[in-house]
Amino acid sequence: MFGQHWQQLIKALQCLPHVGPKSAQRMAHHLLTRERDRAQILTSALANALAHLQRCTLCCTLCEGEICTICADEHRLRDKLCIVQSPMDLMVIEQTQRWEGLYFVLGGALSPLEGIGVHEIYLPQLQKRLFQESAHPIREVVLATNFNNEGETTAYAIAELLQKSNIKITRLAYGIPLGGELEYLDLGTIAQALISRREY
Amino acid sequence: MFGQHWQQLIKALQCLPHVGPKSAQRMAHHLLTRERDRAQILTSALANALAHLQRCTLCCTLCEGEICTICADEHRLRDKLCIVQSPMDLMVIEQTQRWEGLYFVLGGALSPLEGIGVHEIYLPQLQKRLFQESAHPIREVVLATNFNNEGETTAYAIAELLQKSNIKITRLAYGIPLGGELEYLDLGTIAQALISRREY
Repeated sequence: MFGQHWQQLIKALQCLPHVGPKSAQRMAHHLLTRERDRAQILTSALANALAHLQRCTLCCTLCEGEICTICADEHRLRDKLCIVQSPMDLMVIEQTQRWEGLYFVLGGALSPLEGIGVHEIYLPQLQKRLFQESAHPIREVVLATNFNNEGETTAYAIAELLQKSNIKITRLAYGIPLGGELEYLDLGTIAQALISRREY
Repeated sequence: MFGQHWQQLIKALQCLPHVGPKSAQRMAHHLLTRERDRAQILTSALANALAHLQRCTLCCTLCEGEICTICADEHRLRDKLCIVQSPMDLMVIEQTQRWEGLYFVLGGALSPLEGIGVHEIYLPQLQKRLFQESAHPIREVVLATNFNNEGETTAYAIAELLQKSNIKITRLAYGIPLGGELEYLDLGTIAQALISRREY
C-alpha cells in the first residue's frame, strides 16, 4: 500500500528477535515519522557494527579485531575457562570482578524444540578451543549457562564432551539469592540450597 | 566492553519503540551473530525507506512522492474525510472496502500523560486541511480514532475544532463485535450497544 520501500523495510525489520509483521509495521511507522533523525543514526550504527565487530577467534564473543581484550589480557589465568551463553552473561560476570580466568561464549543454548542443536551454537568451536595444542592448556571449566532447561541441557552436553579429559568441571552454585526471603522463593531453589548446604 | 561501535549500536537501537538498554543489547547480539546477512539488508532497507518515504502533503500518511495514491485517486469522494491515528488503521479500513472518501492520518493520539499534545501529532495540519480553500471542501468527517482514552480525547478535540463549521461529524459505531458473545464482552461495550440499539 505504501510502496516497495515500505514493504522491504517491513520484511527487513522482522530479522529482529520476536518481531512479526504487526510490530514491524509499528516500528517502521515510528522510525519514519517521529524518529527520522535517530533512524538515520541507526542505519550507520548498524552498518559500522557489522563492519567492525567480529567473533573473537578464541572465545567467540564480539570484538573489534581478531582477539578480544579479555583473551589478549596477559594477567588473566589462562588455564581457567568460564563458559557462558551470551556476551551479556560475560559482561555481568565481569562486573562481579570475581573471575580472573578466560571466557567462552556459546552464542545460545541447546533447545531441540526451537531447532537449536550443536551446530547452531559454538559447541564445535568450544571443543576445538578445549583440546587445541597450547602453552596454557585448560585445566578447569566453569559451566555458567542459565539455570533453566536449555541452560542445563547445554551444561550437560559440555560435561559429556569433557568426560574423558582431565579437565575439572564446575558449575555455578545453586542456592538462595542474596536478599532472598524463603517465603517467596520457589521450592526447587530451596530444595537445591538444602542439598548444597555448607558448614557455617 | 565490546568497543565504541557496540556502544553506538546499543544507543541507536533504543530509538525503536519500547526498546531499552537490555533489549537493545539482546537485539545487537542477535543481529551481529545469527542474522548478519539480514542485518545488512535491514541497514539498506531502512536507508532506502528514509530516502523515499515522506508524509503525503494532503493526508500525512507515508508515501513515495508528494501525494499518496489514495489522495491522488480521482474516483474517491473528495468531500468525505476519515480521520485515523496511524497508517496501519488506514490500511485496515481500506481492507474493509467500505470507505470511498479520503483519509487523514494523525500520526498518534493526544496523551497528556505521555507528553503528546496538539503539536506532537498532526492536528495543526488537519486544521489546515479542513479549512483550506479547495474545489472540494470537506463536508463530512468520520472520527475513526481508537476507542480508548487517548483516542476518545483526540476525537473530542477534533470535534471541538469543527464546532463552528458546517462540517458534519460522525464517529465509528460502538457495539458488539461480529461473532461477539455477550458472556465474554466487557460491560462497557454491552452498555454502549444497548444505548445505541437500533430498530430490527
